[in-house]
Amino acid sequence: MSRIIGDNMENSRPHKVDIHYCTGCRWLLRSAWMAQELLTTFEDEIGELTLHPGSGGIFEVHVNGERIWSRKEMGGFPEITRLKQLVRDRVSPDRSLGHSDRNTSNT
Amino acid sequence: MSRIIGDNMENSRPHKVDIHYCTGCRWLLRSAWMAQELLTTFEDEIGELTLHPGSGGIFEVHVNGERIWSRKEMGGFPEITRLKQLVRDRVSPDRSLGHSDRNTSNT
Repeated sequence: MSRIIGDNMENSRPHKVDIHYCTGCRWLLRSAWMAQELLTTFEDEIGELTLHPGSGGIFEVHVNGERIWSRKEMGGFPEITRLKQLVRDRVSPDRSLGHSDRNTSNT
Repeated sequence: MSRIIGDNMENSRPHKVDIHYCTGCRWLLRSAWMAQELLTTFEDEIGELTLHPGSGGIFEVHVNGERIWSRKEMGGFPEITRLKQLVRDRVSPDRSLGHSDRNTSNT
């Protein structure tokens, strides 16, 4: 019984997230924290979240192959609420993220 | 310049780890903790570590596609030292893991 429910739930998690981080910069901890935030908030949407150790100051987040954050381009790290909005827009666009969810796309 | 160094380092991390966990059992936290332990200990060996939300009481760890732990088969979760030995045997077999590294393969 739980097998059947399980299989159905797997199928309903089609989205893939990738986080690339620089080991030399010691960004594993913040990357793993962001991973847990995303896997908690998008429990029914994300089917895979991969951490990629890298170098050279890399910090990037990709959703289904699309880069949604680059530290080098954006000039820093995302606020977790902003990161969740960017992921939400790709995996569950109609969903509200609650009281912290404001339209910041024009800022 | 850092690009070139970065690419070279990526090539030296050929191994892939996958952790499957049951969301209904709330095993994300222990899975993410184990992920961070493995990525810290095998910083130069693991190129990708993927967390897979699942259901039905699943907890499995795979290295390069080989299942090295199954909660259902082994009857529980691995000690972190044991898990590191199992990963080490696949990704860096000649390496010692220090004072906690004893031969427990016969126990």
